Amino acid sequence: MLQTFDTVADPSLGLPRVKAVRTLMTAAAIDALLVPRSDEHLGEYVPSCAERLRWLTGFSGSAGLAIIAAKAAALSTDGRYTLQAAAQVDPGTFEVIDSAGKPWLEWLAVKLPNGGVIGFDPRLHAAQTITALKAEALKYGFKLKPLTSNLVDRVWKDRPVAPSGAVMVQPLAMAGVAAETKIADLQRALKAERQRAVVLTLPDSISWLFNIRGNDVAHNPAVLAFAILHTTGKPELFFDPGKLDAGTRKYLSGMAKLHAPKELAARLKSLQEHRNDKVRVDPATASQWIVRALGSVAAHGSDPCILPKARKNTTELDGARAAHIRDGAAVVRFLAWLDANAPSNALDEIAVVEKLASFRQATGMLRDLSFSTIAGSGPNGALPHYRVSTESNRKLRRGEIIVIDSGGQYQDGTTDITRTVAVGAPSAEMRARFTQVLKGHIAIATARFPEGTRGIQLDTLARQALWQAGLDFDHGTGHGVGSFLSVHEGPQSISKRGMAALEPGMIVSNEPGFYKVGAFGIRIENLEVVTEPAMIDGGDRAMLGFESLTLAPIDLRLVDKKMLTAPEIAWLDAYHARVRKTLEKHLAPDERKWLAAATKPVS
Amino acid sequence: MLQTFDTVADPSLGLPRVKAVRTLMTAAAIDALLVPRSDEHLGEYVPSCAERLRWLTGFSGSAGLAIIAAKAAALSTDGRYTLQAAAQVDPGTFEVIDSAGKPWLEWLAVKLPNGGVIGFDPRLHAAQTITALKAEALKYGFKLKPLTSNLVDRVWKDRPVAPSGAVMVQPLAMAGVAAETKIADLQRALKAERQRAVVLTLPDSISWLFNIRGNDVAHNPAVLAFAILHTTGKPELFFDPGKLDAGTRKYLSGMAKLHAPKELAARLKSLQEHRNDKVRVDPATASQWIVRALGSVAAHGSDPCILPKARKNTTELDGARAAHIRDGAAVVRFLAWLDANAPSNALDEIAVVEKLASFRQATGMLRDLSFSTIAGSGPNGALPHYRVSTESNRKLRRGEIIVIDSGGQYQDGTTDITRTVAVGAPSAEMRARFTQVLKGHIAIATARFPEGTRGIQLDTLARQALWQAGLDFDHGTGHGVGSFLSVHEGPQSISKRGMAALEPGMIVSNEPGFYKVGAFGIRIENLEVVTEPAMIDGGDRAMLGFESLTLAPIDLRLVDKKMLTAPEIAWLDAYHARVRKTLEKHLAPDERKWLAAATKPVS
Repeated sequence: MLQTFDTVADPSLGLPRVKAVRTLMTAAAIDALLVPRSDEHLGEYVPSCAERLRWLTGFSGSAGLAIIAAKAAALSTDGRYTLQAAAQVDPGTFEVIDSAGKPWLEWLAVKLPNGGVIGFDPRLHAAQTITALKAEALKYGFKLKPLTSNLVDRVWKDRPVAPSGAVMVQPLAMAGVAAETKIADLQRALKAERQRAVVLTLPDSISWLFNIRGNDVAHNPAVLAFAILHTTGKPELFFDPGKLDAGTRKYLSGMAKLHAPKELAARLKSLQEHRNDKVRVDPATASQWIVRALGSVAAHGSDPCILPKARKNTTELDGARAAHIRDGAAVVRFLAWLDANAPSNALDEIAVVEKLASFRQATGMLRDLSFSTIAGSGPNGALPHYRVSTESNRKLRRGEIIVIDSGGQYQDGTTDITRTVAVGAPSAEMRARFTQVLKGHIAIATARFPEGTRGIQLDTLARQALWQAGLDFDHGTGHGVGSFLSVHEGPQSISKRGMAALEPGMIVSNEPGFYKVGAFGIRIENLEVVTEPAMIDGGDRAMLGFESLTLAPIDLRLVDKKMLTAPEIAWLDAYHARVRKTLEKHLAPDERKWLAAATKPVS
Repeated sequence: MLQTFDTVADPSLGLPRVKAVRTLMTAAAIDALLVPRSDEHLGEYVPSCAERLRWLTGFSGSAGLAIIAAKAAALSTDGRYTLQAAAQVDPGTFEVIDSAGKPWLEWLAVKLPNGGVIGFDPRLHAAQTITALKAEALKYGFKLKPLTSNLVDRVWKDRPVAPSGAVMVQPLAMAGVAAETKIADLQRALKAERQRAVVLTLPDSISWLFNIRGNDVAHNPAVLAFAILHTTGKPELFFDPGKLDAGTRKYLSGMAKLHAPKELAARLKSLQEHRNDKVRVDPATASQWIVRALGSVAAHGSDPCILPKARKNTTELDGARAAHIRDGAAVVRFLAWLDANAPSNALDEIAVVEKLASFRQATGMLRDLSFSTIAGSGPNGALPHYRVSTESNRKLRRGEIIVIDSGGQYQDGTTDITRTVAVGAPSAEMRARFTQVLKGHIAIATARFPEGTRGIQLDTLARQALWQAGLDFDHGTGHGVGSFLSVHEGPQSISKRGMAALEPGMIVSNEPGFYKVGAFGIRIENLEVVTEPAMIDGGDRAMLGFESLTLAPIDLRLVDKKMLTAPEIAWLDAYHARVRKTLEKHLAPDERKWLAAATKPVS
């Protein structure tokens, strides 16, 4: 089962659970308790044993914070999730706050006396977040208190056990660079900065560094682990030893010391032995508990795996290309099936999601979806992060369009593709908007830019055509993507927050959209890899560019050719010719016929 | 005399002056001395009495730092100025360092023993700069020592006296908002942040706030002054009382307490009386001396005048439009004269600069140039910051192009315009590059963008066409511009550093360029004001846009029409029609005839 469609929560469970937590708060001498969505790795992916926010409140979104006071409680989340949160929690128990509109401290200020004490689990908040929060809380007269145990865990009777998904080796043929080489490179970099060691807390950094993958959380094959890398001697790895079979144990113990997670505290403390040592740790991604455990030897610096992991090597890029051909053929089969079946008015969104997954599974290579598929028909498409449930599920109707955003995890690469498909004849408005979004997509795909250019500088290219029409979309244009790792990977992005330079080998999504509330949604997404094209004739400097990895037709029924320039039409035709040429040998005759029609030249 | 063409320095004076300073260094118990280019306001414009760097080294650029050690000295400056610095200083006395390539501390590390003491005048360095420098110097084992007197001043025998240019009132008909209103608004804002007062150190902030202008430095009518604004009671102003006549004295003393500059120290100290007070000061723009004088009451915050000053009111915008019509007519007269005289091969760059100034002076309204005119013909045009001297001066030749970047200070507005003009027939390469630059210029002029968009997001629009050709230009696309104040004004810019949102009423230059070293330069610059155009039909949100203030033809002999899109041609023709329609009534018949030909439709 790759994706479920349940509406999760029973809101009525919220109050008794909050009451149980409140009993412990008194004993802990705190007036309020913070319950964040994060686990101790502070990432987007959380195992079920760490879904404390969901267990306590019923809210299942990927970002949020509950604040429990003696006589009031709130759930703070961002604009993406405020409606969902309001539907999932008991309104008598939790007030839902939009984090952009009102800081939760302001909410707390009217519930709690000056001098109130806010408790938190220091393993579940970034050190940097707590530093900032301390200063902010002081303005309201509040103090922060780190707790030695997690109060939610103490009342959560049937809490799932920590995941112990089997660890597997990502072979050199996929990883491209041996773990020993990556470790040696990192040790050299640390030495150059006169740092004695680095503490790694991000599962995908550790999985990348040791060339391992796991099975701990849905959609992300990173191994939930911590690591300490010393400039000399074996690195230390911390995770449940039950995750290893004989082969992976042999592989890992050859290069690292393996520890159970509970040994981490003592090992961190031991790093304090030499007072003049500097141990690198990233206060933006490591918990306050980790940074405090290092005491005065902590030297703040970014996670040194993030950049080399983002710059894919040629083996990883070859893998990505192979994965995208395989995935593209599955998507083409699905699109052909959709075209044949959607106009019957018999399909619903769940059927679409399941059929698409079945085509990916039929490749025999699928390890997981890279996220729960988004299939939003009609008005549901206007919610960029829509996930169909048995309650929201609706039939596809003629004259509507459907946005399908999906991806697969293959051992050689992670895919992420959005196509918007017409069911029956689309309206002139739909075609105009689709073509404006397509112009933005093409502007990114064909961009040339000098070294050092940041994502924020390119983001505008994706929006120009919409801006000229008085329109926009309220999400970033693109996020970084891992190699058989997280489908959301930094540091690069094409967005208003995209301050990292786009470097050769980085993979980034290109997904402009348009959303008309209550009516329809549009998004066109390919993954792009940053390339170094040959010097342009007459040019005086090297320029970077993109190669589109994703291979699947863009629905021509939604394209208004009159709105495209000659170079835009040329790109569309060339892209479709490449899709056809690359995929046709992987298709059955009827699918090939469908693809030929779907990719016929516009010019 | 609006502009001089001397090559300033006598490099041989450097050594004896450095020797004299070194004698004092021993007495001051320091091993090295910093001599920055800044005066105590830390801005771009420096009166001659504060041109210490130039007096000591001979270097006349607008940014640099001399480091004088016992047996070595260096001049650190950025890439714009390294060549100029090398030509202006005595190479036996000063080593020229590119600040981007090598931090001067690294240079000093091999000249000075560990434990060396670096002296500096705390009035001439921003508090923030010193804080950062302290940490950096520590890495090299150096200490910083603030000095109580300026060692250069003590050996500078014929140092000019401080300027005491007459202060004049900027009338309400030009300023749009009374000083009393601005002061009351600011006091309200301070109260809201629970700050007792703010210390203002930027001359253009103070000139804007009190609606006064001065005559202390070339090209910038700001009054060199300091101010303290209290939440209640009269603000305090610090400048030479000799700058006031009876009228301005009456105007200012009605709303402020007037002090001589030497009283500033005592007044700052008096702010420490109430320990719990918070006095706002901007450590990025205020000197370390100011911030230290406030002691523990200093509350770091940005200069609160910067944003309201940047958002021009309707009166200021009407003034800007009037100034641009006046200035545009002068530029048209000049361009007509240039067309008639340049092909004779008799004109040189200095003649061009002087003739252009004479047309501006003939308006009878010119207060000053807004900067020294750049007139770079042939290869000189390839230096973006070129200033002609009697040595570099060269004749205009047929087949060349000339870049002319200039502006005027009028009481109702500050102008800044660049036009690139063909002398004789331009080459196909020149036309191709000019047209690519023009495409960038038009992309900015026609941009639509949502509220909150930052300059960095628009910068790419100006470069797209060049990037696609493997080309770029190595300066920002645009800077903010004041209202009869500095031609370089923050916080907004269109550049890689442009993190401020572009807000309605802000004026910003639009000046993409292209530079072929040793051959030619191109730049096309208009000033643009951010506007709020009517909702676009079919749009779902308001968009901001630009109105081009600058009015002067763009040389059509340099435009390759085939490279322009239909909307680009439409913009060019509409712009030229507006230039013609607006300016023709201000011109003589032969000038009008020239303008009609220069602005004839391309379509």
